[in-house]
Amino acid sequence: MTAYSVETGGLADGRQILYFNTQPDAGRASFADKRDLGDRVSAGEIRYDVLRDEWVAVSAGRSGRPNLPVACPLCPSDGDELTEVPAPDYEVAVFENRFPSFGGFGEPGPLPPTEATGMETSAPASGRCEVVVFSDDHDSSLVDLSPERVALIVRAQAQRTAALQARGDVAQVFCFENRGVEVGVTLHHPHGQIYGYPYTTPQTRRHLEANRRHRAATGRDLFDDILESERRGPRVIAENDHWTAFTPYAARWPFEVHLYPRHERFADLTELPEAYIESFAPLYLEVLKRCDAAYPGEQMPYMAGWHQAPVGEDRELGRLRFELVSIRRGPGRVKFLASSESVMGGWVHDLGPETSANILKEAL
Amino acid sequence: MTAYSVETGGLADGRQILYFNTQPDAGRASFADKRDLGDRVSAGEIRYDVLRDEWVAVSAGRSGRPNLPVACPLCPSDGDELTEVPAPDYEVAVFENRFPSFGGFGEPGPLPPTEATGMETSAPASGRCEVVVFSDDHDSSLVDLSPERVALIVRAQAQRTAALQARGDVAQVFCFENRGVEVGVTLHHPHGQIYGYPYTTPQTRRHLEANRRHRAATGRDLFDDILESERRGPRVIAENDHWTAFTPYAARWPFEVHLYPRHERFADLTELPEAYIESFAPLYLEVLKRCDAAYPGEQMPYMAGWHQAPVGEDRELGRLRFELVSIRRGPGRVKFLASSESVMGGWVHDLGPETSANILKEAL
Repeated sequence: MTAYSVETGGLADGRQILYFNTQPDAGRASFADKRDLGDRVSAGEIRYDVLRDEWVAVSAGRSGRPNLPVACPLCPSDGDELTEVPAPDYEVAVFENRFPSFGGFGEPGPLPPTEATGMETSAPASGRCEVVVFSDDHDSSLVDLSPERVALIVRAQAQRTAALQARGDVAQVFCFENRGVEVGVTLHHPHGQIYGYPYTTPQTRRHLEANRRHRAATGRDLFDDILESERRGPRVIAENDHWTAFTPYAARWPFEVHLYPRHERFADLTELPEAYIESFAPLYLEVLKRCDAAYPGEQMPYMAGWHQAPVGEDRELGRLRFELVSIRRGPGRVKFLASSESVMGGWVHDLGPETSANILKEAL
Repeated sequence: MTAYSVETGGLADGRQILYFNTQPDAGRASFADKRDLGDRVSAGEIRYDVLRDEWVAVSAGRSGRPNLPVACPLCPSDGDELTEVPAPDYEVAVFENRFPSFGGFGEPGPLPPTEATGMETSAPASGRCEVVVFSDDHDSSLVDLSPERVALIVRAQAQRTAALQARGDVAQVFCFENRGVEVGVTLHHPHGQIYGYPYTTPQTRRHLEANRRHRAATGRDLFDDILESERRGPRVIAENDHWTAFTPYAARWPFEVHLYPRHERFADLTELPEAYIESFAPLYLEVLKRCDAAYPGEQMPYMAGWHQAPVGEDRELGRLRFELVSIRRGPGRVKFLASSESVMGGWVHDLGPETSANILKEAL
């Protein structure tokens, strides 16, 4: 089932909303946003950290956002209960974040050069932040959805990746989900987010650099070699014809699962064939079920998303794959990132990657 | 008051303990450890992450450590109440961590080369982990101690830095403190830790590389230029003749204060003159008092420590300075590092560095 439709509407402050449907046209975009939202909120700026050679977003406007709104803003609108989604029902909805860390400006401009010797270089935090609502059922969770729905979510992520890449102010697109109060989630309606960063993120820059070195030294691609090595190793959690899910050799988080596409290389979701989308869904759902079964009675808090190649420079060095990490390190216990991890980047894995992988393998 | 003495004793499983005293000889090392601790616990291994070009420690043995011991192990021993500190009282005590992330092995070996093309490179997690107890008063906190005691703690950190640098298996020494349940602290007796890493930490490598580029481009030192720029700016929290405390231009954490020595450059604590130690203490205590006063009734959770140059290669590019960061972002609210920060390294500052600096400046 590959056909789906996209309907585009607008919210009261001018933000865009899109409905991804399995039917050709569900008429959802015809519902208008009747709220009085006032002016649209723009992001702040990004500042260049000379000591780490990284951009940092400053988004003071976001502190005005409600900590816990009275009604869930991700539920469908219902009579006088007006939410971020004007339609009375939906499958998957995507809309611009009302309090974005990136974007909301008019015309995007290029980033200033960072080779400059100045100590204070900044630029508008251009780019784009979007919310992806996975279901109109408030009490659901991604793990409870059907493989067909998960595939529709991935199609929506792929479509938005293409749209954000075409903007001209987005260097890299990150589609992700945070789940659980333990990682700061306050809205429990199942949803993810998409960040269109105006810069290539620090982690991705390191991965690209590592692949550049590896190719120069070996003539082979680093991601190919990682996948080949991990498939031979003891930390494979699950696998099907198109994907392998494994805990990596040098994992940092108590639970960490990477899902790599097999047989072919893709730079990002826009290149992912339909067969890979349809087989990602059941494998990822299996991984999520194993995570939730690891410690009975406790949903595992997690952060999960797609690594994608940047839009421009070094795109050929990047690789699409999925990563899920969790701070859960035992029943009722979480790992805190304290001084060694937070200040120095020196990580300590408390469980051991093989032990952690075995817990997931034996969970179901 | 610069004179102090160090007495060296041993614990029941062979670990070292040192007492730092303001008196010439307090006789504390004469108290023996009467516990039956069994065998000494060694650290695990470090694994090379090919994708990030970083070492990660795997320390599965630490999960056997008690989550919350019945009696405080950092209090002085008292009759039958036997703790990690055999003496009946002390000023500052330093001992090897019973459940170390690094060290505990016999002879240290060199790190294996990471230019190799193998996907699984590991080494014993050599190095050293120590605990620094700031006071024998369980209910105290660093912020409550006298400037004289804080200076003695810095002298102990400097002495231990020199000792760990001389071991031959330590590439970089990090002296730090975690405070608050919000950052995972379970032992509330005032204490810090020292990590002697077998590798140069990822953050430090980035700082060294940035300084190398800056020197090549400008002929000036990056840390000099940062300090000069910040002293002219709006984010200076406090200053005295030897130190400037400021929130940096591109801060990442809701509260972030860096303390730089003025006028002179030091690679690490072993080079820090007594005058700088004595003037660090009152300035740091002022910063801590401002942090605790930021949100009345709430002690600020923090992670704080010394950035020091590595022992070997690129040591001349490093710079001693102190950094304190906090996840507190409002009354009763903390910042969670979710997917953008944790998976991609894309940070968003919610308060804005100037707002955060002003809260600290106006707190007292």
